Amino acid sequence: MGDEIVLLDTHVSVFGMRVRIALAEKGIQYEYKEQDLLNKSTLLLQMNPIHKKIPVLIHNGKPICESHIIVEYIDEVWKDKSPLLPSDPYKRAHARFWTDYIGKKIYDAGMKIWSSKVEVHETANKEFINCLKVLEGELGDKPYFNGENFGLVDMAFIPFYSWFPVYKKLSNLNIVEECPKFVSWAKRCMQKDSVSKCLVDPDAIYDFIVMFRQKIGVA
Amino acid sequence: MGDEIVLLDTHVSVFGMRVRIALAEKGIQYEYKEQDLLNKSTLLLQMNPIHKKIPVLIHNGKPICESHIIVEYIDEVWKDKSPLLPSDPYKRAHARFWTDYIGKKIYDAGMKIWSSKVEVHETANKEFINCLKVLEGELGDKPYFNGENFGLVDMAFIPFYSWFPVYKKLSNLNIVEECPKFVSWAKRCMQKDSVSKCLVDPDAIYDFIVMFRQKIGVA
Repeated sequence: MGDEIVLLDTHVSVFGMRVRIALAEKGIQYEYKEQDLLNKSTLLLQMNPIHKKIPVLIHNGKPICESHIIVEYIDEVWKDKSPLLPSDPYKRAHARFWTDYIGKKIYDAGMKIWSSKVEVHETANKEFINCLKVLEGELGDKPYFNGENFGLVDMAFIPFYSWFPVYKKLSNLNIVEECPKFVSWAKRCMQKDSVSKCLVDPDAIYDFIVMFRQKIGVA
Repeated sequence: MGDEIVLLDTHVSVFGMRVRIALAEKGIQYEYKEQDLLNKSTLLLQMNPIHKKIPVLIHNGKPICESHIIVEYIDEVWKDKSPLLPSDPYKRAHARFWTDYIGKKIYDAGMKIWSSKVEVHETANKEFINCLKVLEGELGDKPYFNGENFGLVDMAFIPFYSWFPVYKKLSNLNIVEECPKFVSWAKRCMQKDSVSKCLVDPDAIYDFIVMFRQKIGVA
């Protein structure tokens, strides 16, 4: 097609992994450009001047920002292969609702742990688990969030799975014990190449976070 | 069609007005049920158990929550009339980006004024104006955000216009003076019946907010 596709991203980002899985599901080749969030590149500031955040997908020179918007864009542009959203409007709304929940509630609650001092971890752990249990209730005993097929919500949440061991080490939070239904679901997702190749090694995330916590002065 | 459509909403809500405009654009009849946010109804808690927020659109008994998701749902179900999103994927992503900006940045910055004590208004005003000026820059001299036609971003932002006089009275913030480009744009939007009939009288919003501020103990 001659499309030029660049992804500005940071390897540990759950939002970035979500986009990488979507690209892998569609079989799209792209150039990956790792970004340093403590020393933002001119390219990132040019491509996302409003939020100055990753991920940014640059398609033939034009930037698309915000991971949930990028994933819908990918699904609409490369619509002939591996649909990422259901076709039924109600199911689409339902998938968008839980994707939004993950991006807001789950992410924010998790961030309160890794971006804050040890003193607040006990309270932050409780809040995070409460949010995760709501999501576990939505998964229930279904193979995937949407039922029989891997989809939008799985793609939004599976990156957090690679962070579970990080929380265990960082704040002594045992998510797999608290939310056991996530385990078989995660194993199922990991059988997909698009997922297993895009998730990041938890040890690498942990090392990154330890360094990050020192730099922002909470460790 | 025999569809049963109910909207759980609060008249002053900018998110609610957004949905009402979308329904009006599509010519959809519905039953409106005003909700008391300080004393939430069993129906609201049943229909949106996760966030417990309005607006909720109930279509044949099934709830759809979060205004940006509701608007996309409306556009997908009633797709034959008045498209609310552009058809081009990049333009869709662009419209979703600014709708997201309005829902997060503009709403949050505005809420810091009406939900907080007078002492913080000066700082909150500055932050709100900064966010509004970014949006004014995006509008520029175009007739509508998307160019020639009323669309998703206009629908998301025009409800704030009915709040402008409220901020003037509440925190002495003159938005039309600070962001003059919004004035002719708003007048253009107000020429549409779908908009003028759905916006709420600023005096009614002001009275509501004065009462609300007393109840939450900031006035």
